[in-house]
Amino acid sequence: MNPSEFYTLAELADRFALTLVGDGEHRVNCVGTLAEAGPDAVGFLSNPAYRNQLADCRAGVIIVSEADSADCPGNHLIARQPYLAYARIAALFDTRPATPPGRHASAVIHPSATLASGVAIGAGAYIGPDCVLEAGVSVGPGCVLASDVHLGEGCRLIARVSLGDGVRLGKRVLIHPGAVIGADGFGIAHAGSHWEKVPQLGSVRIGDDCEIGANSCIDRGAIGDTVLEEDVRIDNLCQIGHNCHIGAHTAMAAFTGIAGSTRIGKNCLFAGRAGAHGHIEIADGVTVSAMTMVKKSISEPGTVWSSGIPAQPMREWQKTLGHLRRLGVTLKKLRARRPASGKEE
Amino acid sequence: MNPSEFYTLAELADRFALTLVGDGEHRVNCVGTLAEAGPDAVGFLSNPAYRNQLADCRAGVIIVSEADSADCPGNHLIARQPYLAYARIAALFDTRPATPPGRHASAVIHPSATLASGVAIGAGAYIGPDCVLEAGVSVGPGCVLASDVHLGEGCRLIARVSLGDGVRLGKRVLIHPGAVIGADGFGIAHAGSHWEKVPQLGSVRIGDDCEIGANSCIDRGAIGDTVLEEDVRIDNLCQIGHNCHIGAHTAMAAFTGIAGSTRIGKNCLFAGRAGAHGHIEIADGVTVSAMTMVKKSISEPGTVWSSGIPAQPMREWQKTLGHLRRLGVTLKKLRARRPASGKEE
Amino acid sequence: MNPSEFYTLAELADRFALTLVGDGEHRVNCVGTLAEAGPDAVGFLSNPAYRNQLADCRAGVIIVSEADSADCPGNHLIARQPYLAYARIAALFDTRPATPPGRHASAVIHPSATLASGVAIGAGAYIGPDCVLEAGVSVGPGCVLASDVHLGEGCRLIARVSLGDGVRLGKRVLIHPGAVIGADGFGIAHAGSHWEKVPQLGSVRIGDDCEIGANSCIDRGAIGDTVLEEDVRIDNLCQIGHNCHIGAHTAMAAFTGIAGSTRIGKNCLFAGRAGAHGHIEIADGVTVSAMTMVKKSISEPGTVWSSGIPAQPMREWQKTLGHLRRLGVTLKKLRARRPASGKEE
Repeated sequence: MNPSEFYTLAELADRFALTLVGDGEHRVNCVGTLAEAGPDAVGFLSNPAYRNQLADCRAGVIIVSEADSADCPGNHLIARQPYLAYARIAALFDTRPATPPGRHASAVIHPSATLASGVAIGAGAYIGPDCVLEAGVSVGPGCVLASDVHLGEGCRLIARVSLGDGVRLGKRVLIHPGAVIGADGFGIAHAGSHWEKVPQLGSVRIGDDCEIGANSCIDRGAIGDTVLEEDVRIDNLCQIGHNCHIGAHTAMAAFTGIAGSTRIGKNCLFAGRAGAHGHIEIADGVTVSAMTMVKKSISEPGTVWSSGIPAQPMREWQKTLGHLRRLGVTLKKLRARRPASGKEE
Repeated sequence: MNPSEFYTLAELADRFALTLVGDGEHRVNCVGTLAEAGPDAVGFLSNPAYRNQLADCRAGVIIVSEADSADCPGNHLIARQPYLAYARIAALFDTRPATPPGRHASAVIHPSATLASGVAIGAGAYIGPDCVLEAGVSVGPGCVLASDVHLGEGCRLIARVSLGDGVRLGKRVLIHPGAVIGADGFGIAHAGSHWEKVPQLGSVRIGDDCEIGANSCIDRGAIGDTVLEEDVRIDNLCQIGHNCHIGAHTAMAAFTGIAGSTRIGKNCLFAGRAGAHGHIEIADGVTVSAMTMVKKSISEPGTVWSSGIPAQPMREWQKTLGHLRRLGVTLKKLRARRPASGKEE
Repeated sequence: MNPSEFYTLAELADRFALTLVGDGEHRVNCVGTLAEAGPDAVGFLSNPAYRNQLADCRAGVIIVSEADSADCPGNHLIARQPYLAYARIAALFDTRPATPPGRHASAVIHPSATLASGVAIGAGAYIGPDCVLEAGVSVGPGCVLASDVHLGEGCRLIARVSLGDGVRLGKRVLIHPGAVIGADGFGIAHAGSHWEKVPQLGSVRIGDDCEIGANSCIDRGAIGDTVLEEDVRIDNLCQIGHNCHIGAHTAMAAFTGIAGSTRIGKNCLFAGRAGAHGHIEIADGVTVSAMTMVKKSISEPGTVWSSGIPAQPMREWQKTLGHLRRLGVTLKKLRARRPASGKEE
């Protein structure tokens, strides 16, 4: 990868409206962790767990909150939201090459597809009939777009992404390798002795600025479309069932699974391996903690839900499991004892 | 996608042996949800949660059970199994284009492979040595078939599917993008200070009419084959370990995982994120609920098993976790109280 | 697949330093389970659950421990570690064809890439700018290597593997289809009303002899690299978050998920669907059982942790859930009873 350009700390403070404490002429061209950053690197402190690393940090500059400024002996940039300021500065140092503009000779593009000028199509990509790719779209190597797929301005499919018939992406949607958008939902009808497939006739619509992680799956609707509103952020290996509707700015960590026809509000957070049953509704701003299973609708916005169990040493846990399994019997016995006083209940 | 043909309600009633109540000349050409269907659309009522939408539904016709007929003011088709009747009617309106017959010029087909006439091979697909593809097979763009893979009549691989050496599919098997059938099982032997790989010398056999979801994995056997009997239905992101045997008509929702050498009966149902340990047997007709871990063999057919915990508000759950963790101590203390009467146990 | 060569039992005993009991001239050319192996096959007994199959086993030879020798009526090879001896013998019978050496005409190799002689590149593979592939590397059909990827001697990517910019693999790393190494980590910063992406500027370094399962994901670091030390063994559909560090010889079964910046020790074992939160440390030799969520650092090496709950019949489990949900109230009531004696804490 190409080396990044250098920026002075004064330039960074000016560009991102931060307060600099230290040497404005000092120059940086990369990022680093507090533990490992050298004089060329920008570090940041966002997680308080790492505050004890401030004193010995050798970074060229550290992005900190006002409150941490006093504990920071060297150059630092004070930000109201250090992590956000870091994100913006780090983007200056991202030199990863993009898929080069133009159509690779090995790509297969159906003659009925419409590609804006300057679109980048990587090696071995397949663009099917009636697809429409708008300006600035980049389709990486090995991607497969079935038929009638629409990609809004600036969409980027990194590599080996599958988009099914009729899938629509808004602007600037970013999709990581192996993701499958618009495969059939899981619809089967029991016919006495065997299953029959229920045709999945809808598709998938994804709003502007969404990001979909590697090997995640978003199924096409059975009837009507599966919908992600704008700025939905989905990590790797997630599953969104047919006809789900995910509200804007909702984020889901790895292995999150949402069963079919469930409606998730805006600004929700799902931690890793969280999930929701089908045909329910979850209000705006709901947080679901890791390994938690939401079984019923949640109507109160902004609430936090949980059912995950943290690990214990195996022996302790097995005892707990034993108590749990016998709980009904144990409580019955305890209740059956004649209380010493009669005031219960 | 092409528009669908129109059918009169009389035609539909006749073709699928349903009882029509209403206007036999009315014409429909698509499907819709009860909430959104217009006069051209067929709706259906299967989940009682949606019964209250019957009265205002604008669908051209609704498929309902006998019991719901009276609550249905407009055109309706009475079916013994409304969801099944819907599935069959919806198939008439599925106009999604198939991979066109013939071999795309960019596909790579080993000269030793045998392809029936009329087989469809998509762009960039790879068909390895000694593969056999029978009549009506469709291999979508970007699929990779290693060596000695046999695909029975009418198999369809949508796109980017991987089939390992020696994998055998029956007739009409449908596989969604990103699925990996026949990768090595997870076999490692400890050699004191390091691991050595255990060769995975079996393969995978999949019966007629199975469906495998996007990004699911079915591992090849270590010794002998991993087997799916006919009509097994597997959703996205599932994992079937080496040497498992899955009985006919069993269905598994997303994230289901079955560890190696486990034998699952016929007509079982696994809800989302359910799983089974290795080297066990599960009887026919067993249902496993969501997020449930089956650790031991289940010998009683038709039983329902569960260990998933529905979400609670975080504070309540944390209190419950606290009680659970201290349960042994608490119960001991309660038991240690001298009972008021001596009749316990 | 080609038939395997035959070996006499005397040859096998000699080659792998095993003690033969039986006919040294007997010849075998395949492996089999105790239940199904015929006279040409090598079987083995490692799991005591299968010991009752020894008596009727028709295998040409069985690999057993010293302790099981007496129960083995026919030819057997005595090994200190029967499963390990089996692994080594089985490797003799692995006739699966490798990707043929040379570059398939349909592969796309950037002119700036450096390939050792004899490297095998399969159909439709893409090798991007500045990649370096050392001797004995095999890149299967449909793989995508972005830019600046280094593959050490003898690495094998089976098919449809994605490696992101700057990914480095040591020697003899084996990667199964659909795996995605070096996609962006899940880094988003909240900017009041929407998310902004945090650039993921590190990459992934994987040590010698690692194996990565089908459709697993190992994310690139946000700052600095995600690291797997040597001989890490990862099953299918696992997720390793950005900036994790996984110690040598650690093994993870399917669906294991490790959130970002977590450091796992050497020789750890994660059973299926186990996981760890982010920003924690787990000591060497720790075992985490199936469906267990590690939320805090574990500092004691060699400990075993668990929070998974085995399935119960649905009705029993629902009663248990009811007791669990009311546990606080129930215990309060029981405690509120005046104890018969006053000795409670």
